[in-house]
Amino acid sequence: MNPIDKLTEIFSRFPGIGPRQARRFVFFLLREGADSRAAIIRSIGELSSEIIQCEECMRFFSRQGTLIACSICSNIERDRTKLMIVSRDSDLDAVEKSGAFPGLYFVLGGSIPILEKKPERRIRKDALLSRIEKLAELREIILALNATADGENTEVYLRSLLDSNATERKIEISVLGRGLSSGLEIEYSDPDTLKNALKNRSH
Amino acid sequence: MNPIDKLTEIFSRFPGIGPRQARRFVFFLLREGADSRAAIIRSIGELSSEIIQCEECMRFFSRQGTLIACSICSNIERDRTKLMIVSRDSDLDAVEKSGAFPGLYFVLGGSIPILEKKPERRIRKDALLSRIEKLAELREIILALNATADGENTEVYLRSLLDSNATERKIEISVLGRGLSSGLEIEYSDPDTLKNALKNRSH
Amino acid sequence: MNPIDKLTEIFSRFPGIGPRQARRFVFFLLREGADSRAAIIRSIGELSSEIIQCEECMRFFSRQGTLIACSICSNIERDRTKLMIVSRDSDLDAVEKSGAFPGLYFVLGGSIPILEKKPERRIRKDALLSRIEKLAELREIILALNATADGENTEVYLRSLLDSNATERKIEISVLGRGLSSGLEIEYSDPDTLKNALKNRSH
Amino acid sequence: MNPIDKLTEIFSRFPGIGPRQARRFVFFLLREGADSRAAIIRSIGELSSEIIQCEECMRFFSRQGTLIACSICSNIERDRTKLMIVSRDSDLDAVEKSGAFPGLYFVLGGSIPILEKKPERRIRKDALLSRIEKLAELREIILALNATADGENTEVYLRSLLDSNATERKIEISVLGRGLSSGLEIEYSDPDTLKNALKNRSH
Repeated sequence: MNPIDKLTEIFSRFPGIGPRQARRFVFFLLREGADSRAAIIRSIGELSSEIIQCEECMRFFSRQGTLIACSICSNIERDRTKLMIVSRDSDLDAVEKSGAFPGLYFVLGGSIPILEKKPERRIRKDALLSRIEKLAELREIILALNATADGENTEVYLRSLLDSNATERKIEISVLGRGLSSGLEIEYSDPDTLKNALKNRSH
Repeated sequence: MNPIDKLTEIFSRFPGIGPRQARRFVFFLLREGADSRAAIIRSIGELSSEIIQCEECMRFFSRQGTLIACSICSNIERDRTKLMIVSRDSDLDAVEKSGAFPGLYFVLGGSIPILEKKPERRIRKDALLSRIEKLAELREIILALNATADGENTEVYLRSLLDSNATERKIEISVLGRGLSSGLEIEYSDPDTLKNALKNRSH
Repeated sequence: MNPIDKLTEIFSRFPGIGPRQARRFVFFLLREGADSRAAIIRSIGELSSEIIQCEECMRFFSRQGTLIACSICSNIERDRTKLMIVSRDSDLDAVEKSGAFPGLYFVLGGSIPILEKKPERRIRKDALLSRIEKLAELREIILALNATADGENTEVYLRSLLDSNATERKIEISVLGRGLSSGLEIEYSDPDTLKNALKNRSH
Repeated sequence: MNPIDKLTEIFSRFPGIGPRQARRFVFFLLREGADSRAAIIRSIGELSSEIIQCEECMRFFSRQGTLIACSICSNIERDRTKLMIVSRDSDLDAVEKSGAFPGLYFVLGGSIPILEKKPERRIRKDALLSRIEKLAELREIILALNATADGENTEVYLRSLLDSNATERKIEISVLGRGLSSGLEIEYSDPDTLKNALKNRSH
């Protein structure tokens, strides 16, 4: 395969990118010239040399000196009684941006599709268990998963994985509230959302 | 103005319809022929002759004998301790379809935009007050409004309208729960929704 | 069926309208009140009493005195050597708006889907033939049909219907040019359009 | 700037990519692991080492031995009397895929926006002139530009650039035909397209 087709194929595996746009990326890089391509190559290379995974929450972060934990995990002001479990780094980013959560995180690295026979290969199961084990003051685990079939399936799996241990250590397991999200209109809400919104109504 | 242009103008005031589609409606009616147009005219006429507004919840319903209340309001099995306030008939339909609410309704007839100087001309204020007055067993008023700026403004207005009377009669005022609606992904949730979902998390 | 459901069903047969929007139309009419509904009824009624079909081009127009032909057909300055055949009144409107065509029209009243066994029930075949017969000075018939499968099928049908008579009378049959439509980019053009654009290139 | 932010910025300059999707690309690359990133780096590197620009048509192609012309330009069966000028490699790809053009190409490398004061910095003007000079048998230059304001402006520029020389050498300059593109419906066609379709009607 020639380099144009090969790189087109690589780009078409990027999230949300089809073969047509992948090809436009390749032509874009060709037009941009060799210097620009060298800069991209350098920058992708730095992901390998400078980005490490936090040993505690498993998120990716920029290596700083000899630190092995990220800026959140090593921040002593974060509330160590609360651990939020998210699927992906981008979910963690979204929650951090909301400024609503003062605790710690764990990034699963994925979610578990329905009918998946080997759930443990989709998420960082062992790292999660050892993370929870080490958090001596933990009082609450918040499952912050997508309100989708995959997210709900992941919730079921995590509850069965964590329940007995959590009960023993008196750690509460909670999930994000379901209801009307910002901008939603009653008329266009699906029955499930309305049921949840009614059940979770606040006084 | 000729009848084609006149009817085009009328249809273009229909919700969600622009002048182009309005004109297509007119040509559609022309092609359909006189019988078909007569059927539409009859059917619109029946809205005036056969549809009445329920004197209790204010929704529109099909007149049946001498009943002045709709099938919900006259159903003695509905829970008369709960009243849900919605903006529109279509909101009521959506909630009924979810099957999640056993109580009674009141249809405001609109919502109150921010900066509206005369809120009472947007909603059925007097009918609402007299409706609440008559419900002797009422224990909870649920504000089921859109999660939009208008909906929130309407909530503020209704709370100030109803609060003192509700306190006196020990009626609780509640609002639909905010959080993740079905299908929503964490990564694409706005900060407000995440804050609400975290605050309303369930254990 | 109650009048709300009945009218919902009628509106959902309007072009481009689903059951949900149809219902919103009904609630809109209910909220608008009886006067507004009476105005709509009057306006639809006027389609029957004031709009007639031009006996020559078959388009709908507003009756004026005792005229039986529309303003285009009765305009002696229109070029009577050219007849453009379109599927619908709205197509005629679009062409008139472009100001590019000085001749006369005929509105087929529809198009012929592929596999239609009785083409003549889809279009005004007899009216078309008698229209052409009456135009003594006719030199060109322009088929202005959609660039879709139905449009192409209609073209095939019309050519076989008109060809022998046209040859005899030395009337040319032409079709609208195919090529790049305004705004189209080469990269996103389908092969057929590029082939046509190349074949019809102008010097 | 840390490598995640730096690479996010680079990706957000890719055509059609915003900062959010750019960030998803970076997280995707992080999750994919070091081997996968090495493969991408290698593949981008090959654009510099293996892809060269054809000295004749200026398009990018995969170096093969010591050839300096691409597979089209070095194909002696292509019709050397016709030269099609396109803006981009992707336009050339689209035309080749249609199989409708047997001649040679020249890739301008861009188009000329309206009000651009230095058109020559947007396109490969000198390369174009010398390409035309060398094609001794040339009889027709086809301008295959987008049917957009930029495309039309580029056409005006190229005509004034090429006209006198073309007249002298008896080379015809043509442009792709304008009209209905596949799938377009008369009712939704803009006036310009209808004018062109009527002017370019075929008999």
